[in-house]
Amino acid sequence: MKRGDSTRERILNAASAEFAEHGIAGARVDRIAASAQANKAQLYAYFGNKSALFEAVFSIALDSIVNTVPIDGEDLPGYAVRLYDEYLETPELVRLATWVRLERRSTGHLTIDAESLDEAKLRAIEAGQKSGHIDPWFEPFDVLTTVIAMSMTWSPASATFTATRDDDPEDHERRREALRRIVTRAFAPPAR
Amino acid sequence: MKRGDSTRERILNAASAEFAEHGIAGARVDRIAASAQANKAQLYAYFGNKSALFEAVFSIALDSIVNTVPIDGEDLPGYAVRLYDEYLETPELVRLATWVRLERRSTGHLTIDAESLDEAKLRAIEAGQKSGHIDPWFEPFDVLTTVIAMSMTWSPASATFTATRDDDPEDHERRREALRRIVTRAFAPPAR
Repeated sequence: MKRGDSTRERILNAASAEFAEHGIAGARVDRIAASAQANKAQLYAYFGNKSALFEAVFSIALDSIVNTVPIDGEDLPGYAVRLYDEYLETPELVRLATWVRLERRSTGHLTIDAESLDEAKLRAIEAGQKSGHIDPWFEPFDVLTTVIAMSMTWSPASATFTATRDDDPEDHERRREALRRIVTRAFAPPAR
Repeated sequence: MKRGDSTRERILNAASAEFAEHGIAGARVDRIAASAQANKAQLYAYFGNKSALFEAVFSIALDSIVNTVPIDGEDLPGYAVRLYDEYLETPELVRLATWVRLERRSTGHLTIDAESLDEAKLRAIEAGQKSGHIDPWFEPFDVLTTVIAMSMTWSPASATFTATRDDDPEDHERRREALRRIVTRAFAPPAR
């Protein structure tokens, strides 16, 4: 790895932590540079400004969740449970997305390019509907939005209870099983 | 209404709008006072400081949703749909709660007094389980958290799509019906 890449990586990691903690308006470029053992001139050279740095961080986080937890149109309950586990491992992702919602795009799609980002997921859901794994009554986009909402019940954006890795393993297991049952039943195709 | 109460009300309304828009750290007491046609001395006399003003606003918002959309253990699907409609009417409530999650209490219960606030809701769910309306397999608290998460699929905290009153009425109707089906199926007691 080139030295420049390594500085860039350190800035991105520090920025992710800073933005996840304080949001976009609240994040301080000084703190990001200090935490990355870089200087502000380097940071601006790589990313332009705070807003562009945020977009870079958020874009990486979005790619990461799609790659780490790919959708499975033949196993939506498993997808939801894997998302539950992923939010425990990387709470930053959910916090970044939620800051975007509060600070940037208060209505409609969360991301500007949602339609292209969601295309593969919607195709997977349609395929699951055709293969008899998901009730075809639902619009694929409604399946996607509701299953993600269910998986986020105990996420760092929760309006009720945010789970953490430190919770009792029995609580995690009970939530996973509740989520599995709920998603299974909610989208099961009608019995023939 | 006394003149003092009216100023207090105006401050609370202005503060609710300001906090919902900008969050706790981002809210400006100057703007709240100006918008309320009050002065900062009055504001501090009534509420002490910005943080205490926020707590007053948030507490009123929480009471309001409980009173406007009471839970119904015999009709959870209807409860979820009424919440969907309420988030369209008062998006501020969801935004206030989400700022609390991001800025104040990043893990565990959203509110310090969640256990007493939730007590009546949990009793309603238990009663619904006993009367055969909700699958008794689930822990009442898991029913509460998941049904709220489902109702918030398209809320102002959505990680996917935030609905507004301006959306096509057909979209609202489709989402309500999807929500009704999902909640009905998810929590239906097993057939005897």
